[in-house]
Amino acid sequence: MPPESDPSERPTRGAPSGPRVRKGLVIVNTGNGKGKTTAALGLLFRAWGRGLDVRMFQFIKHSTARFGEHRAADKIGLRIEAMGDGFTWLSKDMDETTALAQEQWRRCREVILSGPEDVIVLDEFTYAMHYGWVDTQEVIDTLRQRPPQMHVVITGRNAPKELIEHSDLVTEMTLIKHPLEDQGIKAQPGIEF
Amino acid sequence: MPPESDPSERPTRGAPSGPRVRKGLVIVNTGNGKGKTTAALGLLFRAWGRGLDVRMFQFIKHSTARFGEHRAADKIGLRIEAMGDGFTWLSKDMDETTALAQEQWRRCREVILSGPEDVIVLDEFTYAMHYGWVDTQEVIDTLRQRPPQMHVVITGRNAPKELIEHSDLVTEMTLIKHPLEDQGIKAQPGIEF
Repeated sequence: MPPESDPSERPTRGAPSGPRVRKGLVIVNTGNGKGKTTAALGLLFRAWGRGLDVRMFQFIKHSTARFGEHRAADKIGLRIEAMGDGFTWLSKDMDETTALAQEQWRRCREVILSGPEDVIVLDEFTYAMHYGWVDTQEVIDTLRQRPPQMHVVITGRNAPKELIEHSDLVTEMTLIKHPLEDQGIKAQPGIEF
Repeated sequence: MPPESDPSERPTRGAPSGPRVRKGLVIVNTGNGKGKTTAALGLLFRAWGRGLDVRMFQFIKHSTARFGEHRAADKIGLRIEAMGDGFTWLSKDMDETTALAQEQWRRCREVILSGPEDVIVLDEFTYAMHYGWVDTQEVIDTLRQRPPQMHVVITGRNAPKELIEHSDLVTEMTLIKHPLEDQGIKAQPGIEF
């Protein structure tokens, strides 16, 4: 969108260009770089500013996590639910890992199919599909059945090809430079988490 | 950062790994894809959640813009200041364009050099450097002189090579798929702006 042309600022009644099409989008933020979750947070913040009903489910971040986004969300009543147990794919018990991912997905699936939400973010959900814990085709079928106005944002590396084919908007975040570790600088609260 | 290891959740007093290094970072979100401004917004939101003092200056968006981010920011008292006049580089009066960009930069420069802010975002500022309205070397010199704890985030396409060399963390956003226009779907409030 050209930055200068916010159409919501213009008169729309009887506008000659016809009605604005409303369609829920499937948006994927993938790639090995930074900014996948962060851009999803920015989108939620922006949508919240428009008065939309927004909600984020986090598949990896531990359910007790109190990162910057959780603190900010709590302050304003925006729902971000961390459901994970940390780095699931390092688990030694893959049955447990698979069971957790499927349980998380069942919960999200229910909300996607029935929810009144305008925007739902499935944060770091690509891993569950990539590692085969959740069936990608079932995810796509669920997206097809969702309320037509609902936007769904999925983040994480290695987004499955089939999901990308089904999506409306896909961005790849690529790391160009990240020498922090070389400089002995650790991730800093408020910036990276 | 591994999602499971938020160090702020751990005891830090006398931690054997030594003190966490605090250093203001220069972060650049560039590339032709979506998510550059959006990721900067997410970073601000997260930092705000941590109680940091944050501020965004927008170089292109019109000073009267009321996008989702402005509405959200107003609701929570987060400062986002749009200073632009729309698509500056399409202007027919390049003297005026250059003067506006330099005036915007002067204002930001003052804040960067003196401000108590923890995080400052210069949104769509790369264009001013790319088109030569603002001298890249002066920007880098200013960044060198800023308070050492201050993080500065710069977004926009075509980030100058010299800026990238001076930055700590650079991400390129690449458009993989964006068939919205083909489907007759316009940008939607709350999602893209």
